[in-house]
Amino acid sequence: MTASRDVHLIRRPKGVPTPEDFAFVEVDTPDAADGQIQVEGLIISVDPYMRPRLNADQPLDAPMPGGGIGRVVQSRNPKFREGDLVRHGEGMRERFTTDGRGVAVLTPDPDLPLTVYMHALGGTGITAYGGLLETGALKDGEQVAVSTAGGAVGSVVAQIARIKGCYVVGSTGSDEKAAWLRDVVGLDAVINYKTETLSKALAAAMPRGVDVYFENVGGAQLDAALPLMNLHGRIPVCGMISTYNGGGEGVRNLSAIIYKRVRMQGFVANDFGHLNAAFLSDMTGWLKSGRMKYQETVLDGFDRIPEGLIGLFEGRNAGKMLIKVKD
Amino acid sequence: MTASRDVHLIRRPKGVPTPEDFAFVEVDTPDAADGQIQVEGLIISVDPYMRPRLNADQPLDAPMPGGGIGRVVQSRNPKFREGDLVRHGEGMRERFTTDGRGVAVLTPDPDLPLTVYMHALGGTGITAYGGLLETGALKDGEQVAVSTAGGAVGSVVAQIARIKGCYVVGSTGSDEKAAWLRDVVGLDAVINYKTETLSKALAAAMPRGVDVYFENVGGAQLDAALPLMNLHGRIPVCGMISTYNGGGEGVRNLSAIIYKRVRMQGFVANDFGHLNAAFLSDMTGWLKSGRMKYQETVLDGFDRIPEGLIGLFEGRNAGKMLIKVKD
Repeated sequence: MTASRDVHLIRRPKGVPTPEDFAFVEVDTPDAADGQIQVEGLIISVDPYMRPRLNADQPLDAPMPGGGIGRVVQSRNPKFREGDLVRHGEGMRERFTTDGRGVAVLTPDPDLPLTVYMHALGGTGITAYGGLLETGALKDGEQVAVSTAGGAVGSVVAQIARIKGCYVVGSTGSDEKAAWLRDVVGLDAVINYKTETLSKALAAAMPRGVDVYFENVGGAQLDAALPLMNLHGRIPVCGMISTYNGGGEGVRNLSAIIYKRVRMQGFVANDFGHLNAAFLSDMTGWLKSGRMKYQETVLDGFDRIPEGLIGLFEGRNAGKMLIKVKD
Repeated sequence: MTASRDVHLIRRPKGVPTPEDFAFVEVDTPDAADGQIQVEGLIISVDPYMRPRLNADQPLDAPMPGGGIGRVVQSRNPKFREGDLVRHGEGMRERFTTDGRGVAVLTPDPDLPLTVYMHALGGTGITAYGGLLETGALKDGEQVAVSTAGGAVGSVVAQIARIKGCYVVGSTGSDEKAAWLRDVVGLDAVINYKTETLSKALAAAMPRGVDVYFENVGGAQLDAALPLMNLHGRIPVCGMISTYNGGGEGVRNLSAIIYKRVRMQGFVANDFGHLNAAFLSDMTGWLKSGRMKYQETVLDGFDRIPEGLIGLFEGRNAGKMLIKVKD
């Protein structure tokens, strides 16, 4: 038995969560029984998708789940050895004991920081890779538009398209992200949809039309892209954050898909298990060669989980927000 | 040289076209020169796809193209003989002279009326056949929803799906069409979207969800179908007539395609040339055996072309709208 801490939600936040909505709870983590492992947390991910969960799906007075990387400290399960690094979904726990379901051994590349396995080499990366290359059926040298290009998925999509020799235009909502996309990532054009008229700016930036529009937003951003779609264009749909909960404007330009024979298709990361080996090989190479850029905001210490989660909704992160619990 | 008339678009319609948007223009049709034929129109098709063309692609003060059946009255081209029946795309012309490109000799089945070659055995039929079976990738026994099921394309789609053993629900906008679909065509359920709440009625009629939604309408009808789509459902998009006259609500439920991995894809009849032999064989058989029912609205006289086209957007047709110019 080992003393450790979990983060619980103790009340439903109104608007942006506050530190008082959470509690650190001392727990005794049982030793691994036969078939079990005990894992200590190293890196914990905080993500925007967690916010709506706080309103209902997340039970009060229970540990908050989420993605993480940990180290096996006890193993009585033949699939794991003590010292193994693992990926898991147990979330905001310093330490936990499990039968190993949903836990996967991670063999990180020694030349890359472990944190990249929580974004470019994790679910974010395979979502971008499979969505663009398989669902979007990207061909080298095509004309590509990416919404939320400064975000976790969008920034990987935009860079894969650049690596494939495409002309890439990204939209984002802040001048800082726009500058990073233009100056560090090197996109062909960047549009700040908060300060420019998206439909006009996108049309001006893409005089040869759009072969692939990678959709994270929906609503007005989709309406801006639709009239620009080229014959046999594709719209892989990763998200439609503007239209969740029935909000935002309806989409009015869908009839553009008819004569241009555009294919719109939804997907989720789980669809791309068959691409995993190619993805890991490609992405590891791109990261090691410096062709794939990323931004991270890493807070040090388990104590800073609420601060990290709250910071997401106050825009205090640049790129992926992570909590480093232990080296 | 022969005096005849063409129908021209003379101004861009606002909303539903009016008779004043069109003009009958007297022309002198030249005699067939070497390599040419002269054709007199017998049957002229008016179709929903023509509406968006009126906004931009259709030049003003020029004949409006479209499908038709005519008879060769002069031939100086070895591919055609005087008296041949032909299909053509010259549209709204009483008579025209051409080198024969885009004109195909038609050898109608003597047991079928000539008009069926303008719908079930024409562009309408191949649109329905290819859109449902290829773009929609229909599998036997699936759950199928069809919008404008009383229309030219929709009624063929619904019947092909029935022939393929599917459970088929159609929506239409009049009780007469609903009765025809229920009593003559034999659909599993029929919804009159003008007298019922479409989203509720569709959900009630399709308790096993929707594998293929054949889209002719867009707007509210698409919003009703989206939440019912099954995993890996398909939405072949043939038309979005609700948006053609600039009206209609935006589409709000598109995010349903993400987790269900729905594929929406536009297409046009020309995409299915490779299916033509199979289509003609299947459809001729279905028509002659009486398994494929159809309705036609045939207006008599070249003068009635604008009335026919406008009537399409006011729902005044039962089945395929045709103009009979001459026997």
